Amino acid sequence: MSTPKVDFADSAYLDSALPSSTRIYVSGKIHPSVRVPLREIHVSGSNASVRVYDTRGAWGDPSQVCDVHQGLPALRLPWILERGDSVEFEGRNVRPEDNGFLSFQHAAKAQGRNKAESFPGLKRRPRKAANGGAVTQMHYARQGIVTPEMEFVAIRENMGRERACEGPQHKGESFGASIPKYITPEFVRDEVARGRAIIPANINHPEAEPMIIGRNFLVKINANIGNSAVSSSIEEEVEKMRWSITWGGDTVMDLSTGRNIHETREWIMRNSPVPIGTVPIYQALEKVGGKPEELTWELYRDTLIEQAEQGVDYFTIHAGVLLRYIPWTAKRLTGIVSRGGSILAKWCLAHHQENFLYTHFEEICEIMRAYDVSYSLGDGLRPGSIADANDQAQLGELATLGELTQIAWKHDCQVMIEGPGHVPMHLIKENMDLQLKLTGEAPFYTLGPLTTDIAPGYDHITSAIGAAMIGWFGTAMLCYVTPKEHLGLPTQKDVKDGVIAYKIAAHAADLAKGHPGAQERDNALSKARFEFRWDDQFNLSLDPTTAKDFHDETLPQDGAKLAHFCSMCGPQFCSMKITQDVRDYAASLGVDEQTALDKGMEQKSEEFKQAGAEIYLKQ
Amino acid sequence: MSTPKVDFADSAYLDSALPSSTRIYVSGKIHPSVRVPLREIHVSGSNASVRVYDTRGAWGDPSQVCDVHQGLPALRLPWILERGDSVEFEGRNVRPEDNGFLSFQHAAKAQGRNKAESFPGLKRRPRKAANGGAVTQMHYARQGIVTPEMEFVAIRENMGRERACEGPQHKGESFGASIPKYITPEFVRDEVARGRAIIPANINHPEAEPMIIGRNFLVKINANIGNSAVSSSIEEEVEKMRWSITWGGDTVMDLSTGRNIHETREWIMRNSPVPIGTVPIYQALEKVGGKPEELTWELYRDTLIEQAEQGVDYFTIHAGVLLRYIPWTAKRLTGIVSRGGSILAKWCLAHHQENFLYTHFEEICEIMRAYDVSYSLGDGLRPGSIADANDQAQLGELATLGELTQIAWKHDCQVMIEGPGHVPMHLIKENMDLQLKLTGEAPFYTLGPLTTDIAPGYDHITSAIGAAMIGWFGTAMLCYVTPKEHLGLPTQKDVKDGVIAYKIAAHAADLAKGHPGAQERDNALSKARFEFRWDDQFNLSLDPTTAKDFHDETLPQDGAKLAHFCSMCGPQFCSMKITQDVRDYAASLGVDEQTALDKGMEQKSEEFKQAGAEIYLKQ
Repeated sequence: MSTPKVDFADSAYLDSALPSSTRIYVSGKIHPSVRVPLREIHVSGSNASVRVYDTRGAWGDPSQVCDVHQGLPALRLPWILERGDSVEFEGRNVRPEDNGFLSFQHAAKAQGRNKAESFPGLKRRPRKAANGGAVTQMHYARQGIVTPEMEFVAIRENMGRERACEGPQHKGESFGASIPKYITPEFVRDEVARGRAIIPANINHPEAEPMIIGRNFLVKINANIGNSAVSSSIEEEVEKMRWSITWGGDTVMDLSTGRNIHETREWIMRNSPVPIGTVPIYQALEKVGGKPEELTWELYRDTLIEQAEQGVDYFTIHAGVLLRYIPWTAKRLTGIVSRGGSILAKWCLAHHQENFLYTHFEEICEIMRAYDVSYSLGDGLRPGSIADANDQAQLGELATLGELTQIAWKHDCQVMIEGPGHVPMHLIKENMDLQLKLTGEAPFYTLGPLTTDIAPGYDHITSAIGAAMIGWFGTAMLCYVTPKEHLGLPTQKDVKDGVIAYKIAAHAADLAKGHPGAQERDNALSKARFEFRWDDQFNLSLDPTTAKDFHDETLPQDGAKLAHFCSMCGPQFCSMKITQDVRDYAASLGVDEQTALDKGMEQKSEEFKQAGAEIYLKQ
Repeated sequence: MSTPKVDFADSAYLDSALPSSTRIYVSGKIHPSVRVPLREIHVSGSNASVRVYDTRGAWGDPSQVCDVHQGLPALRLPWILERGDSVEFEGRNVRPEDNGFLSFQHAAKAQGRNKAESFPGLKRRPRKAANGGAVTQMHYARQGIVTPEMEFVAIRENMGRERACEGPQHKGESFGASIPKYITPEFVRDEVARGRAIIPANINHPEAEPMIIGRNFLVKINANIGNSAVSSSIEEEVEKMRWSITWGGDTVMDLSTGRNIHETREWIMRNSPVPIGTVPIYQALEKVGGKPEELTWELYRDTLIEQAEQGVDYFTIHAGVLLRYIPWTAKRLTGIVSRGGSILAKWCLAHHQENFLYTHFEEICEIMRAYDVSYSLGDGLRPGSIADANDQAQLGELATLGELTQIAWKHDCQVMIEGPGHVPMHLIKENMDLQLKLTGEAPFYTLGPLTTDIAPGYDHITSAIGAAMIGWFGTAMLCYVTPKEHLGLPTQKDVKDGVIAYKIAAHAADLAKGHPGAQERDNALSKARFEFRWDDQFNLSLDPTTAKDFHDETLPQDGAKLAHFCSMCGPQFCSMKITQDVRDYAASLGVDEQTALDKGMEQKSEEFKQAGAEIYLKQ
């Protein structure tokens, strides 16, 4: 390889993020070529190691030497070829306007140091369905076919759950979800067939590892990246993608709106082991110089094809922004805040015509099914403030998204539904319940929601509250919000802060749903904490480095990591040390005393019941 | 004044934290000496200013020159004297063991640079109730007296709510709370009389501004500070107190366990405009060299009196850790994690006797009522992990706390109840419901709860999720958790991060409860955001500096603060700019078209109803 033309960061900082871990693979039984990556966290002493979901792809495998300039191996390509239902073709030529109306030369100049370097790796020719057929996972599922992708996600969701399920865990409340104890490939097929889950897997993004988004699976999170007209370079965006998957981002949306949109996306696609989503109208708008009224169906359609050929796995499509809903937003405190929603509103008003995404919806389906691009039906009329939550415009659009879901399913297209936004806590469940009912249980994919408007700079927190709750209630994927929301573009630090806050929300939701095995990691970490195994506690945490750094701020000595005390109580006294005394005491009690104690508890239990409260004693 | 012996930070950094604000005062009508501080945030143009609750006391009033070495003015002293039911007396002498078994000389040496400087300001002699009477706010309330403290909190809770209530706001769901539209002094009296709210107000802490903790009032937050055997100095702790009230901490707990406990507390008390809580058993333990088995009732009692004379406003007292509950913790994953709980468990086991706080509970009541120290009945058996949530030991203790509440009320003592801890989301409501039922609606005061164990370093977030929910369900005060939880002692930065996360949780809870006027600030900020009034948006936020810094990271130019676009979309296209088009369009519709639109909505509304979902259309 020649000298890198684009300066990418050394990967060392990614490798050191998750210490004391080993990459392991679990192979498929139906499809032996399936190799599912997991991360095994080693725990000291006789304590069992803990297996966790791993979103890093080849970037997290020290045995694979990856190079950003070459892209990742196309692991799904053999499966796609084996199906024999797609054809390779010449594909669309990249045009200057794809990169924001700049010739490549101008682009390079405009970026200065950050040259608009074309992706130098292998340029595969695109594929699409042969003979106007469908190559979607839903299509296969409905035919009863368990694809390698389906077996992959089944293994991935289980994460060695056989063992995890042995430990103690609260029962949970899943609000009518149907989560099996063990995920089989057949269950995956069934959920995809009925539209209750999607596997975003464009046949032109064979680098991506299959993952599933659905209410009966682990709650997923998405990280948004992307440049804008005023900021960011290609390297920064690729690094944000790698950074977000290091911390557990399940999918990444490239929301670029500035220069070099096509090239930025190419670098991201070829290096991403997770599905990539986009909002094609953003690029379409760039192609018409930012003037919504100049958008046409033909130009938009061409953009869909451009991106489908590149391999984008899901498209946000705001087809529910209907002309008749738009006036309802006039009385809102914050009008239309969705970028896509407002572009389409402007177009509808300028032409006094119905939204062309709605009128051409079936043609869009034909494109989606030819590449297996999943729909993410956009909520262009989502509320932009607490005041506007759950209003007419929002709920009107949701009903239309439900109708469109039925049409997409008719074409074997995979669909998820986007949701708000800004919602006070007491209105969150209503959103979820309406979504399930109006859209036939298509997976819900929400932005937050933010539970108050008063904390710009901390919206990863205002929204993690809402995200955890809506995840518990049934949302399948949570779109992260970073601390920069409403204020600026996220830096790499913001991306990490957003991803961690959302991993917390998603995991809290899994626990509350009673997702089988979800509590294993909590139990292992709490046991380590209680036994003063500091390094185990760090290694089992979502962000080991931060946990260790915080500990070291107060007690920096290396010996302190072995010390049977912490900085809160100090060496003289420690609450946790007293437990042994308690255990000795409990063990010393005779049978009679034990019985008396349990009798006491029975009495207590009666007291609770008499108080009219629900009791939670034993599961 | 001589040269400061203790180096306190210049207050400038506190003053600049909340720009574009004015300190205003609202006077009492029943008690003209009542002057309630509020912060008025100025908003540009014709937009109304917004009044917010202000916890900074005299530190937030530029017209008052305050000096940490002199302490704050004793604003409540005239009210206390006027009641004529308390007497000044000599008080207990400070003994070396009060500061951790160190002579003052040794203490000074041990601290090096940070001399254990005695508080140099005025040393008032302590007061207590005359003739064994009660000087508690509950006592007055039950006699039908509206004290200045009660009128103070009534005005404070309203915050100019008359105006705030005019704006649009969601109805909320308060789960049976009885929140009036307007808080009257009589309502405050009534709530305090029936024990549903407390006003922590030790007569020896006349510097504190009255505040109320109860389910029918704004949700409050507490910030923990305090040194430990391995870290911190007096200045650091005083600065953490000032820092926490700058960002909105409603009370502060001094959990010091290291050296100079008495002196550290003296500095904090004399400078704190908010109620101070402590856990007296911590200091008692220091006095016996960290050996729980050597604790005695006499020594503990003496510590209570020492602290009551200093002015501590509420004591955490773990009187519900009964001998018979202790064996139930033996099977737990994380045993007993409350420091107080484990100290008492150790004592009970060592002596095989019932907890002396339980057996001497009525004697404690006599001390509490003589100074008006409020009980914070401690949950010594709270769960330390998700696995141990809502177990026998925790719920057994809660029932005992309910019994003790009745005894305390008999003595006219004010009481709140402490709660967990670590609880998965689906078990949070059960905690709240049981607490209300078992303790007769005494105010609940919870630590978090943390909704997962896997994110040390981010437990302000894992717990803000649980805190927001339990606050919504009815918890009156939320004890903050900082990012350092489980790892080390919070720095000043951590204190701020914890306070802001909890202000978010408390406010999200107020919104969800439908607290009258709570939405005013959200509405004002969202309107500013939508109209690109960047400075207004910053100034209205919980942390203006951070919001502004984040904005400037992407768009540092000063002109950008006036720009009608933001870094996310850039200058060419902006979703919010399109609103005007929408409003023009809506305005242009004729009557017939408007009717047709509304008809459309009625149809939509029917669809929702048929879908069986609850509808949220108009309030």
